[in-house]
Amino acid sequence: MLDGKTLQNFALLTLKIGVNLQKGQGLEIACPVEKHKVAEEITKQAYLLGAKIVRVRWENEIVDKLSYTYADTPTLCDIPKWFIDSKNYLVEKNFCYVAIAADDPSAFKDIPSEKLAAAAKARSKALKKFSDCVMANGIRWCVVSVPTKAWAEQVFPNSLDPESDLSDAIEKTMRLDRENPTLAWKEHIDNLTKKAEYLNYKRFDSLHFKNGAGTDLTVGLLDDHVWLSAKETAKDGVSFVANMPTEEVFTAPHAKKVNGKVVSAMPLCENGKIIDGFSLTFKDGKIVDFSAEKGYDALKNLIETDQGTRRLGEVALIGKSSPIAKSKILFFNTLFDENASCHLALGKGYPTTVKDGDKLSKEELSKLGLNDSVEHVDFMIGTEDLTVIGIEKDGTKTPIFTKGDWCV
Amino acid sequence: MLDGKTLQNFALLTLKIGVNLQKGQGLEIACPVEKHKVAEEITKQAYLLGAKIVRVRWENEIVDKLSYTYADTPTLCDIPKWFIDSKNYLVEKNFCYVAIAADDPSAFKDIPSEKLAAAAKARSKALKKFSDCVMANGIRWCVVSVPTKAWAEQVFPNSLDPESDLSDAIEKTMRLDRENPTLAWKEHIDNLTKKAEYLNYKRFDSLHFKNGAGTDLTVGLLDDHVWLSAKETAKDGVSFVANMPTEEVFTAPHAKKVNGKVVSAMPLCENGKIIDGFSLTFKDGKIVDFSAEKGYDALKNLIETDQGTRRLGEVALIGKSSPIAKSKILFFNTLFDENASCHLALGKGYPTTVKDGDKLSKEELSKLGLNDSVEHVDFMIGTEDLTVIGIEKDGTKTPIFTKGDWCV
Repeated sequence: MLDGKTLQNFALLTLKIGVNLQKGQGLEIACPVEKHKVAEEITKQAYLLGAKIVRVRWENEIVDKLSYTYADTPTLCDIPKWFIDSKNYLVEKNFCYVAIAADDPSAFKDIPSEKLAAAAKARSKALKKFSDCVMANGIRWCVVSVPTKAWAEQVFPNSLDPESDLSDAIEKTMRLDRENPTLAWKEHIDNLTKKAEYLNYKRFDSLHFKNGAGTDLTVGLLDDHVWLSAKETAKDGVSFVANMPTEEVFTAPHAKKVNGKVVSAMPLCENGKIIDGFSLTFKDGKIVDFSAEKGYDALKNLIETDQGTRRLGEVALIGKSSPIAKSKILFFNTLFDENASCHLALGKGYPTTVKDGDKLSKEELSKLGLNDSVEHVDFMIGTEDLTVIGIEKDGTKTPIFTKGDWCV
Repeated sequence: MLDGKTLQNFALLTLKIGVNLQKGQGLEIACPVEKHKVAEEITKQAYLLGAKIVRVRWENEIVDKLSYTYADTPTLCDIPKWFIDSKNYLVEKNFCYVAIAADDPSAFKDIPSEKLAAAAKARSKALKKFSDCVMANGIRWCVVSVPTKAWAEQVFPNSLDPESDLSDAIEKTMRLDRENPTLAWKEHIDNLTKKAEYLNYKRFDSLHFKNGAGTDLTVGLLDDHVWLSAKETAKDGVSFVANMPTEEVFTAPHAKKVNGKVVSAMPLCENGKIIDGFSLTFKDGKIVDFSAEKGYDALKNLIETDQGTRRLGEVALIGKSSPIAKSKILFFNTLFDENASCHLALGKGYPTTVKDGDKLSKEELSKLGLNDSVEHVDFMIGTEDLTVIGIEKDGTKTPIFTKGDWCV
């Protein structure tokens, strides 16, 4: 279980490898109330590392669910100015931001999709300045996970001790079972960096995804695209790792150069709803058709959030031999599931996946082909038989993935 | 234990008798993270009563203690504007405010008093607009308590199950053990109201407190003083009960007409520090001498907070036959201990204890003799042998308390 020495190592990995907290810097931790001991340990370790101040933004899905159930939509969409300011404050003061993602995947299954979507949209819109900044690495941030009861019961419905099982799974993916977790992370990051360097060297014009499930999709890339992996650099010049675990190498698709059909490989948990067995068809970057066996309304609401949720903002490559993929566990949590499978994201693209993107205006990024939106939602497309072929400007083709794994 | 039906009744008493939540009104609950189930139940019942929106302000003394330990004083004194705005928001939107007081009485015993005092002062100063409004009943508010582990262990150090014992004690004082708690509260409020009406009718000029412990104090009252009890009326005209439990009948001393010496009857827990065996000597309303067997520095820092913490803002009468006094339990929590004993408060007086006080400016209130400060700290003076005599303008004396209890 995530306690004692393991919890301390978890906190230290999050702070030293994750946000790379510097002496004299502020830290905010978003944490579910039931896991207060985790936030307390991260707070303690942060202060021991020299944090200036640590604040915790507590979260509680039971209160949220009651609000979604009983409050009306206009009230849910009315985001107080002080709340928006409390987020922008983190940017102004260059805080590090640790988000503990431990949502119950079906917390809001009984709430009408329209209500959830309206509230999510209002929130995303109100916090656009903050999320734009986070996505452009304006602050150092890191998403990690700890097991909560409700989440663990969905991942291990037949277990006698779901929380313990999920804890074990998370510890493995976080490399907390290694003798020296910090060293293991450094090696892992080097390995991912090499893959990104290879792809940057090749300068593919597009990628072609194909498998037996029906995916046959060409994803055009920006001329100035940059492949990134685990280690990124924030505006203040300090490196960090935004997701732990992370197994992906990713860049931005061209918002207007995606064509064909893609079939989902795993369920998508969005806003407390599960969307499964879905497909999207693109023409010139835009979704022109879609279907879903489960959660059609939630998918429809997501796609219709704004103009940007009809297009792609990310393409990420993960081989089937990644530790998360090999675990065969469906986590119902994007942090893990996106690292088990090649994926795409609807919505906003990361400015950092464009050359000098953090120095360009929104208009300049858009002109280069980067998508913009209030949302950024990953969905998995990688299967055991997936082929990915890189196509250069002159038509030269190079296989990148065969049988669902890297071949370069 | 506070769960099931008892927890539901606790929530309903807090909402219906306490803040008297109205349909369509917002509610904020301040709650320690470890008692999240209590906040969840109050949230649920509030929505069922028709609340517009419910928000929870989560608290965690372990994180606070780490901050007090490791952050420097200027950082602790730097209260973000969004935090101040988040409190003033409650006033602007006429939210009800439920505060769950469940502090560990010695949470901050290892923190230097000066650091705690500086941070408390900065916070009180930053939140002055909000606390002024609360004390003038600008919003409806209610303080209640639930047992936390650390607090219970201090109250029942030799118990096998301190939390359960403290829970039982709280349930009794909250009248949750009665067949119909709501009805029991209505009868209790009527009884206290009658006492306040009697004192208002008498229009005493001063009260004289005397006992064998060394207390010999004359507390002058304002010409326009008003005795209040449990049930008050907020600015919006709706009644509420600000403390549950409550056993007191209280008014404002004249800031410049307190003379003599008062000896504490119970320890005072202030800012995570215990102050015990203390005495204060007043001349023309101002403290001119003080002593303490324990916590002298904390007392000194409290008194020296500002000009107003050298004078009194409240005088409250509670008989020794009050259920809390009879329990003989020292709760180390003002909400309970102040209702076991006659008490005074250093610092700000309630504008509502002056006739039409909520319509008067700060200057007008001050001119009438009401004390002002960033603080308001109760301390207990009632003993089993306490005598209180009411003295009218013409010198007529009427005994109000003999042998520590009401005699009118």
